[in-house]
Amino acid sequence: MKLYFSPLACSMAPRIALYEVGDRAGVELVRVDTKALKTESGDDYRVVHPLGLVPALALDEGGVLSENAAILQYIADRYPEAELAPKDPLGSSHLHQWLSFIGTELHKVVFLPILDKHAPDVVKAYSFEKAPERLSWVANRIRDRSFVLDRFSVVDAYLFTVLNWAAVTPIDLQRWPEIVVYMKRMHARPSMARAFAEERALYFDETVCSPSPFLRW
Amino acid sequence: MKLYFSPLACSMAPRIALYEVGDRAGVELVRVDTKALKTESGDDYRVVHPLGLVPALALDEGGVLSENAAILQYIADRYPEAELAPKDPLGSSHLHQWLSFIGTELHKVVFLPILDKHAPDVVKAYSFEKAPERLSWVANRIRDRSFVLDRFSVVDAYLFTVLNWAAVTPIDLQRWPEIVVYMKRMHARPSMARAFAEERALYFDETVCSPSPFLRW
Repeated sequence: MKLYFSPLACSMAPRIALYEVGDRAGVELVRVDTKALKTESGDDYRVVHPLGLVPALALDEGGVLSENAAILQYIADRYPEAELAPKDPLGSSHLHQWLSFIGTELHKVVFLPILDKHAPDVVKAYSFEKAPERLSWVANRIRDRSFVLDRFSVVDAYLFTVLNWAAVTPIDLQRWPEIVVYMKRMHARPSMARAFAEERALYFDETVCSPSPFLRW
Repeated sequence: MKLYFSPLACSMAPRIALYEVGDRAGVELVRVDTKALKTESGDDYRVVHPLGLVPALALDEGGVLSENAAILQYIADRYPEAELAPKDPLGSSHLHQWLSFIGTELHKVVFLPILDKHAPDVVKAYSFEKAPERLSWVANRIRDRSFVLDRFSVVDAYLFTVLNWAAVTPIDLQRWPEIVVYMKRMHARPSMARAFAEERALYFDETVCSPSPFLRW
């Protein structure tokens, strides 16, 4: 399998999941320049994903899977020994709910426009207004919990990845002490610490000649 | 179970799924005024869903499930005889991918801001620009296919629901003949025809004194 990623993008979530399984679980990681729509070897990424979005997972049996919710569940299902997803029906429903909430309400509604350098200020402000209610919902969920579900799951990999972006936006996570505690715990988890350190290094390497907002990290 | 819905909102998708199962499958449908955040009996809807979003599904075993992707899969799993979701692993992955794509890229990125009466024009324009690429991806998928997956599934219920919104936006689906053909086929399907007719009637009833963009239907 090949996992197509861009440093610190939402494709960090499946990298974390793979590190939970083992050392990349034999999956090849292929870096994508999502602006030029080229892979690191210069291939046209639109052949893999016509919209140029990451992550994408090229499967051994052929075909390409896209969308984080699908890729994260694919990894959880393929490596059941890593116990990355609940197996009971209600647990599965909660997994679906939280993967969807993070993908729709946090990633696309709140963060995507704020992180888009080409988005007008009015668009960023529209998204910014929607943040507090959604982050309060998250904070309420993780109060008195170690993880979003009953134990670590791919939901945490995705939530951690998305909430890290707040550091380069005007969203101040300090307003939600539960989230701060959660993020500290996640940053201390080996799979997440490793993924974050590696992708951060790759990101800085990419942008060494063009200072970016991520330099605030 | 109780399904909380608002006429013609994305909660029409689980209604369609229930009609595929049978006549509501014994599920009580509770209308929500998503502006006033009240149910039809005047109860505070934020007790059910703190963000006021529909759909929400109150489960017989207690607890509330939110997010369309989770509710649609819950219905498919609970009523397997209706065959609303593939059961093989790769089919499940494609189900996850398409539910996620419709929820993130179509519903939240493209349609939500365009349908929001309070969104500034700049915000609507930002979303509108993102429509063609995403609708082309859908058109490409359903070319020479009757359904998004190999047979009818909850993915079609969600896609049909979202694409219907185009009629009250500047997005002209006629640019994608494959989508027009698909939508005609879906409108002819009994579960969809019934759900659409019923929710349209409810919508007009609600807005009889306040003409809305949906009057263009």
